Amino acid sequence: MTATASEQLGRFVAASRWDDLPPIVRHEAKRSLLNFIGCALGVAQSPPVTMALRVLAPLAGPDRVTVLGRSERLDPLGAAFINAIGGNLLDYDDTHLRTVIHPAAPVSPVALALAEQRGLSGIDVLHALLLGMEVACRIGNAVSPHHYARGWHITSTCGIFGAAAASAKLLGLNAAQTAHAIGIASSQSAGTVENLPQAAKNVSVGNAARNGLFAALLAEQGYTAAPAALEGPLGWARAMGDTPDVAEIIGDLGTRWEAGKNTYKPYPCGIVMHPVIDACLALRQEHRLSAADIASVEVSGEQLLLDRGDRIVTNDRDSRVSIHHCAAVSFLFGGAGLREFEDATVHDPAVAAFRACTTARLDTTLPRGAATATVRTHDGRTLTKTVHHAKGSNEIPLTDVEIEAKVRDSALHGGFPGAIDTVIAAVWELDAMPSIETLMRAVVRPA
Amino acid sequence: MTATASEQLGRFVAASRWDDLPPIVRHEAKRSLLNFIGCALGVAQSPPVTMALRVLAPLAGPDRVTVLGRSERLDPLGAAFINAIGGNLLDYDDTHLRTVIHPAAPVSPVALALAEQRGLSGIDVLHALLLGMEVACRIGNAVSPHHYARGWHITSTCGIFGAAAASAKLLGLNAAQTAHAIGIASSQSAGTVENLPQAAKNVSVGNAARNGLFAALLAEQGYTAAPAALEGPLGWARAMGDTPDVAEIIGDLGTRWEAGKNTYKPYPCGIVMHPVIDACLALRQEHRLSAADIASVEVSGEQLLLDRGDRIVTNDRDSRVSIHHCAAVSFLFGGAGLREFEDATVHDPAVAAFRACTTARLDTTLPRGAATATVRTHDGRTLTKTVHHAKGSNEIPLTDVEIEAKVRDSALHGGFPGAIDTVIAAVWELDAMPSIETLMRAVVRPA
Repeated sequence: MTATASEQLGRFVAASRWDDLPPIVRHEAKRSLLNFIGCALGVAQSPPVTMALRVLAPLAGPDRVTVLGRSERLDPLGAAFINAIGGNLLDYDDTHLRTVIHPAAPVSPVALALAEQRGLSGIDVLHALLLGMEVACRIGNAVSPHHYARGWHITSTCGIFGAAAASAKLLGLNAAQTAHAIGIASSQSAGTVENLPQAAKNVSVGNAARNGLFAALLAEQGYTAAPAALEGPLGWARAMGDTPDVAEIIGDLGTRWEAGKNTYKPYPCGIVMHPVIDACLALRQEHRLSAADIASVEVSGEQLLLDRGDRIVTNDRDSRVSIHHCAAVSFLFGGAGLREFEDATVHDPAVAAFRACTTARLDTTLPRGAATATVRTHDGRTLTKTVHHAKGSNEIPLTDVEIEAKVRDSALHGGFPGAIDTVIAAVWELDAMPSIETLMRAVVRPA
Repeated sequence: MTATASEQLGRFVAASRWDDLPPIVRHEAKRSLLNFIGCALGVAQSPPVTMALRVLAPLAGPDRVTVLGRSERLDPLGAAFINAIGGNLLDYDDTHLRTVIHPAAPVSPVALALAEQRGLSGIDVLHALLLGMEVACRIGNAVSPHHYARGWHITSTCGIFGAAAASAKLLGLNAAQTAHAIGIASSQSAGTVENLPQAAKNVSVGNAARNGLFAALLAEQGYTAAPAALEGPLGWARAMGDTPDVAEIIGDLGTRWEAGKNTYKPYPCGIVMHPVIDACLALRQEHRLSAADIASVEVSGEQLLLDRGDRIVTNDRDSRVSIHHCAAVSFLFGGAGLREFEDATVHDPAVAAFRACTTARLDTTLPRGAATATVRTHDGRTLTKTVHHAKGSNEIPLTDVEIEAKVRDSALHGGFPGAIDTVIAAVWELDAMPSIETLMRAVVRPA
């Protein structure tokens, strides 16, 4: 009898050895973790994090671990919940582009919580993170794109499998127990797209981490799941709207690494806006333009870009999917970081005026993912720039230094009072660390 | 603009007053709660409960409430999880027949946990329980039967809405907060039919209670959900496979009571076996038959009964859906309680011999829900009995005294060392109690 999908994933996770992973994939684990921590530090004092902490802190037991950027500590399940919210809150996290899963947010928190609680090593964390992201993205590949289109928030619904797999690895579960953990996760997989604009989104993202860890803890105690929990006739994939392509889950395990394809957003806004920003920043720099030089800007691109981005801007949420706002901040401030999408910036009269002299135009000759910016200057020049692959795509990945800069900006934005360079250094050196104590000490906010 | 389904449920729950409920519906709350507690006491020492406690006990904070039939105490979220598992574990709980939701298991635990923690009254518990069961069953009606057929374990997936609504009522949330609690629950709704034969089933049932309470606690702190979280284009109902019939959710709120239609299983086995047991017990009693008198038994019924019940019995799980086993224990022991479906009984040679002289036959003239038993005695008589409505159906509901007897049997089966009569009396008198302390003291297992 052929092993089921969760059984094969269980064998793969239980048997995987760090030394067998390609160095480039191992390095991606550090980049994913660093980007995740930066995102979480950027929102550690925000209301959604604080409100959820108010619920969970009084319920937490004495054996506690770190909440990123906070002085409070929580039990591992609670910390996993809060830290996953933090990693994802700004939609600034990593992206597995094929599935649009943000894989680090649900998986990293369980790796950090278990390693801190049990004194595991930096390699243990990075290894578990990679395996978890791999499991989440493979299951996501198997049900995409129909699963998301049906209304499932795939980061939540598939992230839980990654959290379960990562937890199973760190708990030292065997292949059968790991398969059960993944199967138990299938009975907890939840989260809808309808709720994405609301705080309810955070609940499904937090639960993906929390309940993935919970699944592994239950499997450790002897809890079981159906062998075909994923692909069975009354199982997860059919219930959630698709028959999975099982080959996407189990094909080339250990040789094809979906986790190695992770990408990182350079700008905290809709990913289709990214080539617009790149084109505007390039024009500004190449021609040493100041805002005062510019009479008008025209941005052109294919239908999806215009559908998403040609809109009136009234608040920060609009600004994250506005062609006009992205062009304005690029030319005015020479960047598009967290501050450029805050309400204060959105309502800045200079920004509003710049948005007003920006237009959007359909250009059917441009492929998806491309954009052209054309500037007319007061002194009569017409300057143009087309970007085919945005920074942060698989074609032009963020460099390590760019990820560091993003993390510094995020920590600053979040008012993180700690030494962010210590955090960054600790992540780069994590595979040499017998425990993650140095890292976890660095990400705490002093009480 | 018309209010959405969750908004209308929020208004209904927030505005509901105990004094406005029909007395017969109020009494059903006591019956549901008593039956639930009996089921939970019957399995309080079982491995699935003990294993889950091993995971949660070390993580629980200092503010703890009762776990039914145990000496351990847990934080309210953890206690809700464990107590829901207990109520449902044996499939012996209550049933809303139209949806096959077992409504008390996910809802009762949150009512008990919050009332114990916050010193609320017996009426508060009964009122919240009714409102929660009402919300769960109405949402279930709106997506049945397609939702279950698609693979969703409806007790888990809809039970969470009941737990959220009951919690909201006990927390004193207003209409808008209650609507948000229900909407937040939609992003946590999970649990598949594929996992029903496994311990993973317990996880989704326990989470329905735990996460429903969690949703309300988050809404209390300010967490929000999409207005159309239930019926929106990318919301819960469409994602879970159906477009809801919103009229089923909001029609006749406050006048039609789905919670008043709750039923209680007299026998811990498949509900289609119940008329078989009734027919055999009636023959035994009416003709004062002993097993030694009987040469053979033939059971006849329609296709569903045969599809489910005509099978080889090798373990206790088989026995719960076996026509032959149900006939055997009815004639041999004059009852079909928990002991009659234990492994020891299943492998008893006398029971196996009786099963072997029992046959099943299709009778297409019998309607669904009916069964005929025909006995041939050694002295040449042929005795026959047809049952059209089984005991425990809406047509022949269990009496209060029969529910009491079931609860006593369950407590005995579970080795409950406390005074079960005190428990029973406390439930019947709950609407006169300013706190539920008497009840909760009675359901604890002394350390």
